[in-house]
Amino acid sequence: MVDQSKLPFSLEFLVCENFMDVAKAIKDMKVRGAPAIGAAAAYGLALAAYKSKAVTVDELINDLKKACAILKSTRPTAINLFWALDRVMNRALSVRGSVKEIVKAVIDEANRIAEEDIELNKRLGKIGAGLIDDGDVILTHCNAGALATVGYGTALGVIRAAVEEGKRVRVFATETRPKLQGARLTVFELVKDEIPVTLITDNMVGYCMYKGIIDKVIVGADRVLADGHVINKIGTYTIAVLAKNHGVSFYVAAPSSSFDLKSKVTEVIIEERDPNEVRQVMGVQITLDEVNVFNPAFDITPPEYVTAIITERGIITAPFKENIRRLIL
Amino acid sequence: MVDQSKLPFSLEFLVCENFMDVAKAIKDMKVRGAPAIGAAAAYGLALAAYKSKAVTVDELINDLKKACAILKSTRPTAINLFWALDRVMNRALSVRGSVKEIVKAVIDEANRIAEEDIELNKRLGKIGAGLIDDGDVILTHCNAGALATVGYGTALGVIRAAVEEGKRVRVFATETRPKLQGARLTVFELVKDEIPVTLITDNMVGYCMYKGIIDKVIVGADRVLADGHVINKIGTYTIAVLAKNHGVSFYVAAPSSSFDLKSKVTEVIIEERDPNEVRQVMGVQITLDEVNVFNPAFDITPPEYVTAIITERGIITAPFKENIRRLIL
Repeated sequence: MVDQSKLPFSLEFLVCENFMDVAKAIKDMKVRGAPAIGAAAAYGLALAAYKSKAVTVDELINDLKKACAILKSTRPTAINLFWALDRVMNRALSVRGSVKEIVKAVIDEANRIAEEDIELNKRLGKIGAGLIDDGDVILTHCNAGALATVGYGTALGVIRAAVEEGKRVRVFATETRPKLQGARLTVFELVKDEIPVTLITDNMVGYCMYKGIIDKVIVGADRVLADGHVINKIGTYTIAVLAKNHGVSFYVAAPSSSFDLKSKVTEVIIEERDPNEVRQVMGVQITLDEVNVFNPAFDITPPEYVTAIITERGIITAPFKENIRRLIL
Repeated sequence: MVDQSKLPFSLEFLVCENFMDVAKAIKDMKVRGAPAIGAAAAYGLALAAYKSKAVTVDELINDLKKACAILKSTRPTAINLFWALDRVMNRALSVRGSVKEIVKAVIDEANRIAEEDIELNKRLGKIGAGLIDDGDVILTHCNAGALATVGYGTALGVIRAAVEEGKRVRVFATETRPKLQGARLTVFELVKDEIPVTLITDNMVGYCMYKGIIDKVIVGADRVLADGHVINKIGTYTIAVLAKNHGVSFYVAAPSSSFDLKSKVTEVIIEERDPNEVRQVMGVQITLDEVNVFNPAFDITPPEYVTAIITERGIITAPFKENIRRLIL
């Protein structure tokens, strides 16, 4: 996989030899972005199957269950992690065959998840592009691009599809502290694709909207609940409130695999990460060592701030509860 | 003066030998914060007077006018710069005496501005402390503390005064990209004073309010207009919109010297600074060199987002136009 912690300065590939390498890469955010985490975890399970020394089916399933539990424990918020692992695990359990056949089925299922992701992002992008007008200035947060998925991207997939249709689009990208996925990854992708991009700090969003610079917001999602609550990178909710206040459309681009139709909003665990992520920027200390820090990695945007959710199956608008049930269930 | 660019890691003092040194220190943000800039500029003019080789009064006034123009050109937004320079210049012009007497009057006036600032902040703090309740969690942005003034601070002055009254107060400080005055200066001041402080990134403000963590917001101001528009560090407006959305009081702590009763909001110049301030953090590159950047140093908060403005003369609430005229004019 691409080692995303090294971008945009160096495009390095990280080779994972076993599922523990994959678990560590997810935990350390070498790979991040909900769909990318899902695919990586699926391949982690495929590695666990491939490397298993199990002789009996029971032994193999046991190995897979252990690997699955460890992979699931890496990060708590993005639903695609659980979705992908459950899907591969269910495939393994459904095969009535030899150890070899189950191993093959697990690897095939991981490949299928990866292949489907690109295809599905392109479909989502095409659907979302219908919402974009020629000349739009679109604000995006964090990175919901090719790097956050297996390819093409969700939020950036919509922007790519609009550009492919010949629409002239400019992007404002927030730097996205603490881990700077906007400055490092979104800028990298858009500069590479020659889509005009302007980088701002996270606290400039309000002023940009005040000045009428921003026409639309598109972000990705780490999890969308049955009632339309959107869990996404910290800072998303701040942008959603600003968008509503300024009458700017706020779109969420999320494949059906990012929907969690079971959990209530109070049940979702918002990951809190190492305080040094805030005390430092790319390893450089910016404040006193001893200062207390709050470092939630995600926030929650209630459905009343969401104009529409763009999925590969169509566009979902309010009432979200009914329309999500109809399209996703 | 304290070289604020070196904090919190090193407390270094910058010696200015002449007014050009002062102008450079203001431009390079070695000294920042509206009242501190005002006092520094006044001392810049005092240095110009003290070092002047003028023999006649006309020559001296000419030297002062040149220095004044250069000092005024350093930064366009904070009004205290112009206020302090006009005040010292008017004092020089009002003296009917010798070169020596005018030089003395200029130095005295600069000293008076500095002395008054501390006294006035303490008065402002005491008045503002009446708005703070025991147990409050107060969000502040950027640094409106002792470092932004000659001493004690405006927004942090209110917090200090509340603490001196025995109120238990906790502070959430935004890091305040791009120059990190929150992480570097506000954290430094509050840790030193043993006032509990939690550092967050700028994009976490929305989530903190969503979770109900924040009771009140207090910020400083670089300029307050006659109708109550508040010009302050970039990110202030974003916080004001969030505060209004969550029913959180949004207070601005500003001495009367920060009021500009002449300019219309469209006439205020919002300084745009070097794009590398966004492309880098403390000199470390975080994105591609070639990416386009928008880097406004300030933003504008309309009066409808302001709960009250705390001045050394009293608390101003809506209707701001009438109440500002009554208290400040």
